[in-house]
Amino acid sequence: MNEAAQDRAAEKRVRESFGRQSIMTTIGASVHSVRRGEVEIVLPFADHILQQHGFIHAGAVATIADSACGYAALSVMPADAAVLTTEFKINLLSPARGERLRAVGRVVRAGKKLVITMGEVFADEGGASKQVALITATMMVVDTGTGLQN
Amino acid sequence: MNEAAQDRAAEKRVRESFGRQSIMTTIGASVHSVRRGEVEIVLPFADHILQQHGFIHAGAVATIADSACGYAALSVMPADAAVLTTEFKINLLSPARGERLRAVGRVVRAGKKLVITMGEVFADEGGASKQVALITATMMVVDTGTGLQN
Amino acid sequence: MNEAAQDRAAEKRVRESFGRQSIMTTIGASVHSVRRGEVEIVLPFADHILQQHGFIHAGAVATIADSACGYAALSVMPADAAVLTTEFKINLLSPARGERLRAVGRVVRAGKKLVITMGEVFADEGGASKQVALITATMMVVDTGTGLQN
Amino acid sequence: MNEAAQDRAAEKRVRESFGRQSIMTTIGASVHSVRRGEVEIVLPFADHILQQHGFIHAGAVATIADSACGYAALSVMPADAAVLTTEFKINLLSPARGERLRAVGRVVRAGKKLVITMGEVFADEGGASKQVALITATMMVVDTGTGLQN
Repeated sequence: MNEAAQDRAAEKRVRESFGRQSIMTTIGASVHSVRRGEVEIVLPFADHILQQHGFIHAGAVATIADSACGYAALSVMPADAAVLTTEFKINLLSPARGERLRAVGRVVRAGKKLVITMGEVFADEGGASKQVALITATMMVVDTGTGLQN
Repeated sequence: MNEAAQDRAAEKRVRESFGRQSIMTTIGASVHSVRRGEVEIVLPFADHILQQHGFIHAGAVATIADSACGYAALSVMPADAAVLTTEFKINLLSPARGERLRAVGRVVRAGKKLVITMGEVFADEGGASKQVALITATMMVVDTGTGLQN
Repeated sequence: MNEAAQDRAAEKRVRESFGRQSIMTTIGASVHSVRRGEVEIVLPFADHILQQHGFIHAGAVATIADSACGYAALSVMPADAAVLTTEFKINLLSPARGERLRAVGRVVRAGKKLVITMGEVFADEGGASKQVALITATMMVVDTGTGLQN
Repeated sequence: MNEAAQDRAAEKRVRESFGRQSIMTTIGASVHSVRRGEVEIVLPFADHILQQHGFIHAGAVATIADSACGYAALSVMPADAAVLTTEFKINLLSPARGERLRAVGRVVRAGKKLVITMGEVFADEGGASKQVALITATMMVVDTGTGLQN
């Protein structure tokens, strides 16, 4: 495959897997863009994902941040390998408010057993964008066997 | 207040705050128990909070783990102080499956500015219990001003 | 091997590997005790490992905390496998002062590819002991090949 | 003060504080450069800071990474405030070998109570540079009182 074809294959794989994550439908998140090694996920502000002060709950912020990192890792995997989050750490920089959140995950180092990733979450409002979280995450590579997918 | 009265006040405060977190209703989590310094949150398995392999999504695991830690911290705060998560790290030990998850958060050190907490998440199934996650979290103490609550 | 023999073999392996870590001699740390799954490392207070306020530097605290966790993981490995730290997170709870520090590392979950550990660091002074740090760490299992050791 | 004067004042403050950290002399680390919000620390490879396979010990990597982050935070503090590391997480990407390590710490968000930082550690060898670690760290702002310094 040439590069453009590889990008399309990665995007197809990420979108199909994401589509099977029921929690994403539940909170209202969607895949914004996929490049090999970088995935962006969007979460519009909504009344059913908040904490007690009316901001988006840290758990929802972490959910899309982890997901952006995990799919960034998946986007560089061969077809017979998938990834699982083994750990992540998130720093919450500011209250998560605004029109929507955008989580951008990137591969820092892709090894045979582990893929190290990092990501940022931004709150978009009125054309401006403010970083609200910083994540680092380790993905474990798992062999899916012939014909299976993540 | 004597100790029992303090425990009741802490429990009342935690349950009221938790009741205002719309994300908890959305995912189906509830407060199981509150003692000063230790809070337990329960999340039954449900079809709308899963990842692509049918396990409970790491984001949902993190949501209740962070929440158990945050409310453990709140349970030791004076009435005019609240807490905000500034960071957490979670290690995911095993796939989160079973009848329900149980997150237990505990205060490790309560300082004037920061409260350090840790927690464990267990998957309960058929009377057995297996640890599926380990979290450490830092809560920032915030002054709520007279009459305000977390 | 029976259990006592396995404990002795684990202790021998840990002490030999530790003895090859020149940084431990440099900072003055030593192995206090080894059981399979739990290792304790001691670091006496000394003038050459301090930060600018006269406390033991967070880097030295992290060094023995990581080491206690890594050797706890090694102590449960088969003879042909070793471990490498892939990540750790440490919360520093109090200034590290006193007569000596004691880091206790424990295995939380030993998998085929990863071993999840946690540990606590205590400052001992005048018979009293105070926790000064909390660590969680992920160790990657590596095959050493026949005849090689960690 | 104009910008250049502020940069010089920040550099002076960082270098004086660093000079009082005896552990840095012990391991052989030095301050390479200081800009407000970004500090670089260098650690030459040396026989007395190694782990059992002959690489620089993860503890030494963490020591300079934490220090670069802490001094990046200090470099943006007013004269009467200092910082303390409250937590850090480090991902170790590759064995730390080469001629020297270089840790670059940067401020991500400077708040009144907390400063969130991140950093990268590179191994330099023969003109090439390879990232070997990724750190995120939270610094707590502490009031030093009149006349005191970090």
